[in-house]
Amino acid sequence: MTDLRTPTRQGVIAAAKSIAAILPPTPLLPVEIDGVTVHVKAENLQPVGAFKIRGGWWRLSNLNEADRAAGVVAVSSGNHAQGVAWAARRLGINATIVMPRDAPQVKLDNTRALGAEIILYDRPGEDRDAVAAKLITESGAALVHAFGDPWVIEGQGSAGIEAVAQLGREPSRILACCGGGGLAAGLSLACPNAAIHAVEPVGWDMVGQALATGDIVNAGDDAPATICDALQPTATKPINLGILSGRAEPGIAVCDDEVRHAQRWAFANLRLVIEPGGAAALAAALAGKAPLDDSTVIMVTGGNADPAAFAKTIGG
Amino acid sequence: MTDLRTPTRQGVIAAAKSIAAILPPTPLLPVEIDGVTVHVKAENLQPVGAFKIRGGWWRLSNLNEADRAAGVVAVSSGNHAQGVAWAARRLGINATIVMPRDAPQVKLDNTRALGAEIILYDRPGEDRDAVAAKLITESGAALVHAFGDPWVIEGQGSAGIEAVAQLGREPSRILACCGGGGLAAGLSLACPNAAIHAVEPVGWDMVGQALATGDIVNAGDDAPATICDALQPTATKPINLGILSGRAEPGIAVCDDEVRHAQRWAFANLRLVIEPGGAAALAAALAGKAPLDDSTVIMVTGGNADPAAFAKTIGG
Repeated sequence: MTDLRTPTRQGVIAAAKSIAAILPPTPLLPVEIDGVTVHVKAENLQPVGAFKIRGGWWRLSNLNEADRAAGVVAVSSGNHAQGVAWAARRLGINATIVMPRDAPQVKLDNTRALGAEIILYDRPGEDRDAVAAKLITESGAALVHAFGDPWVIEGQGSAGIEAVAQLGREPSRILACCGGGGLAAGLSLACPNAAIHAVEPVGWDMVGQALATGDIVNAGDDAPATICDALQPTATKPINLGILSGRAEPGIAVCDDEVRHAQRWAFANLRLVIEPGGAAALAAALAGKAPLDDSTVIMVTGGNADPAAFAKTIGG
Repeated sequence: MTDLRTPTRQGVIAAAKSIAAILPPTPLLPVEIDGVTVHVKAENLQPVGAFKIRGGWWRLSNLNEADRAAGVVAVSSGNHAQGVAWAARRLGINATIVMPRDAPQVKLDNTRALGAEIILYDRPGEDRDAVAAKLITESGAALVHAFGDPWVIEGQGSAGIEAVAQLGREPSRILACCGGGGLAAGLSLACPNAAIHAVEPVGWDMVGQALATGDIVNAGDDAPATICDALQPTATKPINLGILSGRAEPGIAVCDDEVRHAQRWAFANLRLVIEPGGAAALAAALAGKAPLDDSTVIMVTGGNADPAAFAKTIGG
């Protein structure tokens, strides 16, 4: 297995075709923000509650027979975990997922329910990549990286192909919640003329910082707490930065209060359950941090919300 | 204006075509219940948060010029109100809505925000139909009945036409949340071979009782409290009973606890915000009150939930 391949727009289109054969498109919901009708791509309505099912499916369905037999390993705070586990179950592949001990219970439960084996690690302190590397050395399993993988990038980009078909034109701009940059990179390939905005939590804007400096930047041990558990990568990867450099707009950072406001707004105006990390792009739009027009697409990327935390956000 | 016309399948198909030109289809979401993959039609994702936008649009867009100029009057606990107000705003028609004083604040606010004038009445005690009749006599406005109207029935049925296209076949059965029977009647016309289940709150099963006895049955003053504010009609109407008699399955009644369980289940498994009345059909499915197979469609009809009540249901 190699990850040296460069992801392409043709690959994104092929991924979209493969995914359309097994999953209904997620809706593109028109909604008004400050008098402008924008379009929300509700990826939280995927069977695993997140867009990660796309990259998981495209990567696993492209493994050769030997790799399938050896199984796959993934590292994830929970949504990539479920995407890989869902695809693995459907394809009859063994999946082992390295997850942080403090991952939301709902994500641990859902990943287990999909039949994956879970290995817990401590965040911060333990090196999750080292845990995964050890598993791979021992078992010969293939690593399915959450964002630094050409098939994963192409798979995530399929959401953009769907959005173009639903909108009837290429979006003028796309606001995407961003962890390591897999989705943003995939959307860049899917929609070559759209402005792409990567939206990250304050202090975890590793893609924004990489775009600004031109170099990979690592999250410090002093990175602040964030409610966006899905958007805490240690750093982006060269494959993501290579696609996004000179292509994406400057990064946008949002704070916890802006994210909670977006969750409440979506509850009332979209009737969607959005987890904190899945609401980052919407938070940026509501906070006026990106220009909006009637060809703007806002990615809502995940809905695996902790019930108690969500109840506090909307009812408190 | 007459309401003596008999609604037809051709009318439902025409309504579906008209609605497809202005609204994206709501998603049909596959989800597993007891090992069976069923299909949830998420009408809570309509712009007004409920399927009522369909009937409102089809009725108002078929008014003649004189009726449009005179305006419309509707009686509603909140979702039909928003559907009519949305269509009226889009068509430049004045709308006056008679709403119960105890309607959820979110529904009152949303209806007002859509530009409709609201007249409040006291439930129980005041006769809402008399309030509306007085308004109509004074203004010459056209009544848009929430369920006992041929255009409204055809409009609601358009959800069934969409579901057939999305499923790729006619559903074997459809579970529909039911107040007065407008949606159930419309779906009966849309899907002539599907088993139709009207699901109502315990004690407010006016359609179920009418189906059982063959006669219109009025809700007594001693009807129990229910959290399903959208499903409290005083009685069904002959036009609805006429379509459903000998066509619908026996009615199904669900209690508040079953509805709350369905809201929690949808939060976790569908990432949807569903109001109590909109979760009745799902509650029936989860409670094993109807047979399920992989061609079963479950209507989720509304998502205008009170935030505090919803927070208590999912987090408490």
